[in-house]
Order: sequence, then C-alpha cells, then structure tokens
Amino acid sequence: MLGGYTGKVLNIDLTEGIITEETFGEEVLRKFIGGSGLGAKILYERTTPDTEPLSPENPLIYMTGPLTGTKVPASGRHEITAISPLTGIFGEGDAGGTWGMNLKKAGFDGIIITGRAESPVYIFIQDGKARILDGRDLWGLDTFQTDQKIKEIHGQNSVVSCIGPAGEKQVLIAGIMHDGKDARAVGRTGLGAVMGAKNLKAVAVSGTGRIPVADEEGLRQNLKQVLPGIVEKTKTLGLLGTAGGVVPSETIGDLPIKNWKQGGWEDAEKISGQKMAETILRKRYYCGSCPIGCGRDVEIKEGPYKGVDGAGPEYETLGMLGSCCLINDLEAVAYAADLCNRYGLDTISTGGVIAFAMELYEHGLITKDDLGGIELTWGNAGAAIELIKKIANKEGIGELLGMGVKKAADKIGGLAHEFAIHTKGLELPAHDPRAFNSLAVGYATSNRGACHLQGATYFFEKTATMPEIGYKEPQDRHGTEGKGRLNFYAQNIMCLMDSLKLCKFLLYGGVTLTMMTQWIKYVVGWDITVDELLETGERIFNLKRLYNTQRGISRKDDTIPMRILTQPRRDKGAGENLPPFGKMLNEYYQIRGWTDEGIPKQETLKRLGLTELT
Amino acid sequence: MLGGYTGKVLNIDLTEGIITEETFGEEVLRKFIGGSGLGAKILYERTTPDTEPLSPENPLIYMTGPLTGTKVPASGRHEITAISPLTGIFGEGDAGGTWGMNLKKAGFDGIIITGRAESPVYIFIQDGKARILDGRDLWGLDTFQTDQKIKEIHGQNSVVSCIGPAGEKQVLIAGIMHDGKDARAVGRTGLGAVMGAKNLKAVAVSGTGRIPVADEEGLRQNLKQVLPGIVEKTKTLGLLGTAGGVVPSETIGDLPIKNWKQGGWEDAEKISGQKMAETILRKRYYCGSCPIGCGRDVEIKEGPYKGVDGAGPEYETLGMLGSCCLINDLEAVAYAADLCNRYGLDTISTGGVIAFAMELYEHGLITKDDLGGIELTWGNAGAAIELIKKIANKEGIGELLGMGVKKAADKIGGLAHEFAIHTKGLELPAHDPRAFNSLAVGYATSNRGACHLQGATYFFEKTATMPEIGYKEPQDRHGTEGKGRLNFYAQNIMCLMDSLKLCKFLLYGGVTLTMMTQWIKYVVGWDITVDELLETGERIFNLKRLYNTQRGISRKDDTIPMRILTQPRRDKGAGENLPPFGKMLNEYYQIRGWTDEGIPKQETLKRLGLTELT
Repeated sequence: MLGGYTGKVLNIDLTEGIITEETFGEEVLRKFIGGSGLGAKILYERTTPDTEPLSPENPLIYMTGPLTGTKVPASGRHEITAISPLTGIFGEGDAGGTWGMNLKKAGFDGIIITGRAESPVYIFIQDGKARILDGRDLWGLDTFQTDQKIKEIHGQNSVVSCIGPAGEKQVLIAGIMHDGKDARAVGRTGLGAVMGAKNLKAVAVSGTGRIPVADEEGLRQNLKQVLPGIVEKTKTLGLLGTAGGVVPSETIGDLPIKNWKQGGWEDAEKISGQKMAETILRKRYYCGSCPIGCGRDVEIKEGPYKGVDGAGPEYETLGMLGSCCLINDLEAVAYAADLCNRYGLDTISTGGVIAFAMELYEHGLITKDDLGGIELTWGNAGAAIELIKKIANKEGIGELLGMGVKKAADKIGGLAHEFAIHTKGLELPAHDPRAFNSLAVGYATSNRGACHLQGATYFFEKTATMPEIGYKEPQDRHGTEGKGRLNFYAQNIMCLMDSLKLCKFLLYGGVTLTMMTQWIKYVVGWDITVDELLETGERIFNLKRLYNTQRGISRKDDTIPMRILTQPRRDKGAGENLPPFGKMLNEYYQIRGWTDEGIPKQETLKRLGLTELT
Repeated sequence: MLGGYTGKVLNIDLTEGIITEETFGEEVLRKFIGGSGLGAKILYERTTPDTEPLSPENPLIYMTGPLTGTKVPASGRHEITAISPLTGIFGEGDAGGTWGMNLKKAGFDGIIITGRAESPVYIFIQDGKARILDGRDLWGLDTFQTDQKIKEIHGQNSVVSCIGPAGEKQVLIAGIMHDGKDARAVGRTGLGAVMGAKNLKAVAVSGTGRIPVADEEGLRQNLKQVLPGIVEKTKTLGLLGTAGGVVPSETIGDLPIKNWKQGGWEDAEKISGQKMAETILRKRYYCGSCPIGCGRDVEIKEGPYKGVDGAGPEYETLGMLGSCCLINDLEAVAYAADLCNRYGLDTISTGGVIAFAMELYEHGLITKDDLGGIELTWGNAGAAIELIKKIANKEGIGELLGMGVKKAADKIGGLAHEFAIHTKGLELPAHDPRAFNSLAVGYATSNRGACHLQGATYFFEKTATMPEIGYKEPQDRHGTEGKGRLNFYAQNIMCLMDSLKLCKFLLYGGVTLTMMTQWIKYVVGWDITVDELLETGERIFNLKRLYNTQRGISRKDDTIPMRILTQPRRDKGAGENLPPFGKMLNEYYQIRGWTDEGIPKQETLKRLGLTELT
C-alpha cells in the first residue's frame, strides 16, 4: 500500500528530549503529498497567528517527498518549513544534495522539531533510530567543520544538515547548510535562525535501507524512455552551471546591477559561467539522482582568495554578491560565497543587504565610522567580504544588516526605504520583473516573499513548455495578457514539485505533468490524473496563502519595490519596459478565486477541501 | 513702491503674549509672492525636521496674497500653513469667504502665531491693532455660535476664523472655519488641531482701510475687458455649484463610490446639484470679489434633517459623505456636512474615514459593540451622523477614526490597510485617478498628501486650457504621454494661485498666465513675465518638497493606494483603465529635476534660488 509511502515522521521535542513517531494516512498524503505541502499543513495546524518565529513553539519541519531518493531524476531534495523570523510569515526553503535521500534510507520521511534545548545539541538519525546528542563541541564551528566533525564521530556516510555561526547567533538571513563543502543550502527566509534559537546545531542522517518503490520495473522502463531527452535538453545547464546565465541575463535586462538601479554592465562576462569554466572550475556537482549536474565544484589555490575549495557560486550568488554590488572579480565572488556557505548565510539576502548598504553609503546614510572604517564603495570586494564577517558575527553594523533590508530600513528610516529591495521582507532574487513581466505578480504573490522559484514563470518565458495547460511554446516575456493565468499554473506546479521533491530544472528538460503522474504511479502506486495533480498544487498554494492572510497579509502586501514597479532599467533588453502590474494582478486574483483584497474566497477553500482546516 | 504691498505680518507669541510686526523686503516677496509661498518659506525657516505638529513651536501661519481683497476676480482668499498633525509633513489649506480681505483692510498681510496660551484665548485684530483676549467663554461653542458671539462682542463687521469642538479636542482631521454659517473651510491636513493645541479658539478681524492698488484705473480697464468672458465660461458653476459635477463625475468614473470600490451608482442623481437646486437651495453664495458664486446657501425646514441653514454641500462633500458611503439622501448629506461645519471637521477626511469604517464593519474588523451599538452598514445616514458626533467629540470609536484612515489602519492592522484610501496620510478627495490618469501622479506628489487642488490637472483634462504652455485644448484624460509635464506645470500654477490668492475656478473661466502678470502689474506694480511667474511657482513647489524630503519623504511615499493603482473600477467611463503610473512618474521626476529617489537635485535648487535656504 502506498508503495510503502506513509509519511513517517519523527516528532522531536528538544525541551523535553522526547522523540516519537507519527504517520499520516493516505487521505492526508494524497491531499498534501509531502515536502512543502505536508510541511505547510503541519505548520498551519501546529502554530497560531501569534506564534513567534524564534520561540520554542515554532516547529522546524524537515520533509522529503514521496519521490525523494528514488531513481526519478533530480528527486534528491528535501524541504524545510517554519515561520520565518525574517518575514514573520510562512517560511520555507528546499535543498538538493544527499541529505533527503539519506533520511529516507534511514526510514523516515520527515522530522518535526519543536522546543529548545538547554545547551547546544545535535540530532543523529541512523537506520530507524534518532538520538539527541550533546552539541557543545560543535557550537561555534563553521558548516564545513561541523560536517567534518560529525563524519569523524559517526562515519563518512553521515550526511549533515547544520547551521554555522550565523544561525547560532540567530542572524535573520541565516540559512541551513547541507553536504559540507558541497554546500547545498536552504538559504531563504532565515530558517538558520530558527534552528539556532532551538540550540540545535545539526541534524545528521545515515541510512542504508531501501527506499520503497511500488513498481520498480515500470519506473525503470519509463526512465529509459524519458531520461535521454531530459539530459539532452539540460546539457548547457550541466556544462556551464546556472552561472552560464549571467551574460544572457545581462543582455535581456534581467541581471540585478547596482542594487537594481543600473540597466546594463559591461563586466558581466567577468563573472560568468564561461569565465568560471575557464578558470576556477574543478568539476561538476550532481545532487542525488540528478542527471543534469548544474552544481559547480571550484578551487582557488593562490592569490588573495585562495582557500576556496568546494561549491562554486550559482547564478543567484553571482547576481546578488556580484553584479548587484558591481563586484566584477569572479574569484572574489567565489570567496564571498564560500564565506557565506561556511558561516551559513543566504547568499541572495546577503548580496541584497550588501548592495543596499553600498547605496546607503553612497548617499551618506551610513558612514565609514558606522562601518568600522570600511569604505563601502560600489564594487569594493574587500569591503563586501568584511561585511559578510560582520553580518555573520553580528558585529557593529552587521547586526543591523543581518536583519535584512526591510527591518534595517525600518530602523534607519527615510530614504533607506528607497534602497530596500524586497517583497514582504524577503530580498529579491537575481531576476528582474522588468525583463520578465510575469515575475512582478510572481514576486508579489509568492508565499515566502520575493522568490523566483515559488512560481518560476520566467522558465516559461524562456524555453520551458507545459503542453497539458496549453503552453506549447515559450511565452512573450514582455507580453501583458495571460500573466495572471501563467502565475496561477506555474505556482501550483512549483508547489507540486516542492512537495514531490523534484528539481525545477526538470522543466527545462521537458518534463510534463503527465510524466509526474506516471512517476507517482510507479513510486507510490496512486492513479492520479493531471487535473488532480494541478488541483493538489493549487490546494497547497492556497494553504500557504491562508497561513499568511491569518498573519495579516493581503493585497496591500502583494507588491514589488517601487524601484522595480515604476523605474525602467533604461538599458539593454528591458529598456523602458515596466510590468503592467495592476492588470496582471487582477487577472491573477480572479483565476485564483480570491477577493479583491487577496483573501481566498470561501468557495475556493471549499472546492480545494481546505475549509476543515480553517 | 510695491503698490503698498510689504508683506506686513503680525508675529503673535501666545505663550508670552507678545505681539510684534514684521515686513518682508521686495526680494523675498517677489520670490515667494505671499499666501502659500510665503507661508512655506516661513514654515521652512522657523521649524526644524523635529518640530512636533502639536507643539507650541509649530507656527500657525495665516497669509493673504498680494491680490487678496482687490477687485481682481475670485481673489478673496487666504492660506493657512503649519506642520500637519495628520500627516506629519507640510500642511496647508486655503479658504475663500471674506476673512482674508478683512485682514488686509485691517492693515496686515498675514499673522504668524506661535506658542500656547495658558487658557483659551482668541485674537482680535481691528484696523492696525491686535489683541489677545480671554476666550474661555467661547471654548466649547461650535463654529457658528463662535462667529455669532464674537460679532455680538465686536460688531457685525467682525469676520471670524475659528475652530469648533473638534479642533479644541485636537482631532487630527479638524479644520479651521470662516464666515460663520457660510462655512468657508480650511479643511485639509488637520490644522484645526494645531489651533486647538495653542488654546486658540478664533482669530477675528475687522478692517475699514483701503487695500492698496498701484494702478486702479489700469486694473479697472483690464477687468472691464476680461470679466465678461470669465463670467460667461463659469456660468454652470454658478448655477449648480460644484455639486453640478456629481452626475457627470459618476458617468465618467470619477466619483468615489463605496470607498472607491464600486464603478457606478444609479443614485448619483439623488445627491446632485440639480437635485439641490430643485429642493433645498435658497441662494448662491459668493466669496469676496467673486464673479462666479459657486457657493450654495441651503435650508431644511422640516423632517429629520431640519435646522440646516447655511452653507450647502460642495461636490467634494457630496462625493465623500455621500457616494463614498453610499448615502443617497441629499438632505442627510447636507445635514452631515452642516454638522462637520459646526464641529469644525474636514468633510473630505470625515467622509473618507466613515467610508473606511463602513468597509471595516462589512468585513467584521469593527463590530456593533466597538461602535457603541451603531450598525454601520453602507448607506446608513443615521449611523454616519452618529459617527461624526463621536469623531468630533473623541468619543468611543471616534477617537480612533479622528486620527484619519492611515493612523487608524496602523492601529487596527492587517486588512484595515486595504481600506485606508490615502496618500501620505491624507484621505483622497473625490476625484479618481482611474478617470483622470494625470491625477495618479498629482496625488502621489502633492506636497500635502492626496489633493486635487495642489495640481488640479483634471481641470486641463476637462475644459480648461493654458495657451502659454501649449495647452490650447483639453487633454486626453486617459492619455499616457505628457502627464508628467502636465503635473509639473499645473502644480507650479496652483502654487502661484495659492500665493497670489486666486481661486482655481478662474481656470475654467479662461484666465491665463498673461492675465495674472497683468493683475500683478496693476496691483503691486511688478513687471513680471510669464516665465518668471512659472519659475516662481516652481520655486514654491520645490520649497515645499524640500520641507517634506527633510522630513523623510521620498519616492517611496509618492504613490497612491493599491486599490486605485491596481484595481480597475470596471464600470462606467473609467472601465478597465488603470493609470500607467511608473511611466508618468518618471516623466514627472525628469522634468522636475529630481533624482530617481524624488529628491530635488542641487542644480535644480540652485536654478530656483533655493540653495541659500537649504
């Protein structure tokens, strides 16, 4: 039954030191799948609108999906869900790597961690057994060291999810890191601080069990058929990594430059994937079950940035720590990214706050004195690196900047808000709605704040298609019709992929909804239609929305920064374009079945089976 | 010299009880004219960004213009300027009536009132002499009673500017009223509260002097030539009052309906100027020197609303207390307006907060209990009238609502912000930017918060023209090009008219910039070109902006509510239209010579001779 998929989770109460097991019935699993969907349901039911993000009551929910760790391509992923201390609303992030598949091999689909340990601890889970262990010796170590130390204690097969010093200090832009120097990050929404607030340094897993698959042979035959196409279509992504997108993005006006103010930048090539391939690249990195291999493994052996030895910067990191700060030295960006990985900081938000700080500095709103002597001029890589250290250690100005641009601007006041580029408190990632109109609504309505992956509509405005919902060819990125519909479907599909735990790059590989139903059939045994699948994604998205509306979110919050909404880039492929925001948002609300205030209507909740949760 | 115009003001310190006289040199007067411009300069120089609006240090500045009280048409006006307690930024309002011309006849161009009296006082100015008098007997009276009482003491020729109970209680949407039951209001930005905070009940004037005019005969000849045209072109305005605009406004999608949410309303006719003319209208009312006579004088002798006997509701009042609340009973609206006049409340903001409260009530954010038993359903006139009393007396929920929609929404939180229709804390007046695109930028950048009169671009999208700057025919109200330029010129011209003290309805009368230069020549004796005049307006506008930017205002604040910016009216003449905000705002900033953050550039300030003030 369920191909062995029971949604088996560990409830770990760190205050009491109690560990219990729990499973979810088929009805719940079919309604919320796993991963992000099940995480959202648990968060919704086990917190109230008053639960404080850094309180013991905020559960930190690790959740794999039914496909995690199987041979289904790019399924080596897991989701972490909690109330975000950065934004105060629904928070989540997912990571690739090998942690999720190892949790499954250890016999669990997820872990729900509540409470707060008296002194630092870590959790070790090995083949069906979980223990809370003394973590005082780990406290203070960076994420690479933590990984190594745990491997020394529990063996090289242990896979580690942990925080660095930033998470320990509850820096609000701290992430949770995985796989040591391969650095697979749950970066966004500050979940590292939630972990730190629990006095929890790491969750290590080690498993040797088999991940159940209902129809192994069926899956094998299916993959034999579809895998070659996926591999072929994602070839470039494998060759150059996501970093290969830097130059094309600059050309079309997508790359953030100088805190989103500048339209073009001649130095894009200097921090590109091509450049990386020619210089510091050692080899590709593949997450569990991945046929693409977009990860970079890099090495810098000499010069001011020597010592980098592991994960190389992704497109997002290059955009935020590179072009957004006008830093044009690839090795410097790789070094800065490596620092973030070790400290356990989200590179997107970190890049965002540094660019924000550079603009504050330009306008005299913070001074060299405030910065402890740092001259925070645009493009100053050394200064950015010093700031990263200050942020991670909550030193001097770092304490303020580590709160993210919104809270920092609230404290500074006045003009600072002009430079705080965020939605709902989450710093924008490195794609510009002026280049892809649909992203304006996508960022505005993403449940975790500005995010390119909660909707990823720009995939469909680049090369991705989805025939079952009528997207047989790429959409016009500057088009004005149908963007509400596109966001509706794309967000629902992303909710599904985040719940099944599939990498979204599969969409570039031509993966269809039909393929997903087949994989579910082979792995779990469910006969599920494309329509049911889509409605499930819609259900999950609305559940997260409901969580947020109960925390005060409404249309007023569904917007993007004035700089993006009202100032054109005036250069390159975005030129004078400004997204027709209101028009698109209205279309979106309508297809979502939300009121004009952005609240899901009762009839919508009823249709999706969410009324019993409300 | 200066035709006798010396900008002679009284400095009245209520704390010390000291009265001194002061004049301004020609250079200052030519740079800032008088009225709004001179008021802004005084406010700028005599306060700091930290001055609290309700502190003794906030000066309450009454200022006439050089043309006030002369035979120049529609010049019977004066301006009151202070830091607004409602918005925290630059505040001002102007009124017609006869107060300004009487101050001039008494020998003064303005009064600057600082400090705070120990107990209630009033100021009486008669032919060159000013006295601070015991006002304890006036305290608690409504504005009509105050007017009457002062006339009893000082004679029927005394003209009274005063606050009612709302101003005494420092209600933040309290205005300052003039001319007793003719009720000429300085309504906006809560200046009544500033007066109340000074323990100042009234400023009464009585003058018999002659208002100096440099070339009486020249002026006479000029007026003989231009007056008939003005009278002819403004005939409808005189016949039906501004209330004549209700039905046409509803038709084109301009009238606010149901707190700006509804697109059309079949009951508009029931609260129209036509209806008023057929029912409660007694006669027209003319401000000093006015050939138009748009004021209404009404009377209700029986029924639930009997007792109304004086000023009838203007278009703005009908829009805000009527259609915006779905109240379709003209007598009820007249009664509500009369109450506001007596209590000394701004009818625009009062209508705005009542509509806001009705929507809160609809969504259950405030309950019958919160309202002291009132069922605040849409269109419930009785409930609205009860609320007005509560607001004026700071009773129950009235204390919250009297803070204006922004501060009230801040306190209520969450969804309340959806219904708070304001810019920079000032409730929108009764014209919709979805009907007139230009108003989006006009409201966004008006220095006192959302205002139709600080730019009044919609005049030029209706019938007004201004040939000297190329507007030879009315502009397309849904056009997207040139709206930044239109706002630039219109705002500069309004600054001029507010400084010369000319009624803006003269623009419907075909008054040109050239005519204004001629009137200045005849009255003051200055040879002033159209270009100098326009630059003077630009200087005054930028001075106010500078005042605001020093209080933290920037582009982030230059916006309009999401409901107006992103939701179409979906009915009548505005249909699906949404103003192309970013595009227009960028054009505007560019022509203004402001940075992308909305700060006047140094070169702009230098060109306008404002650098010595900064």
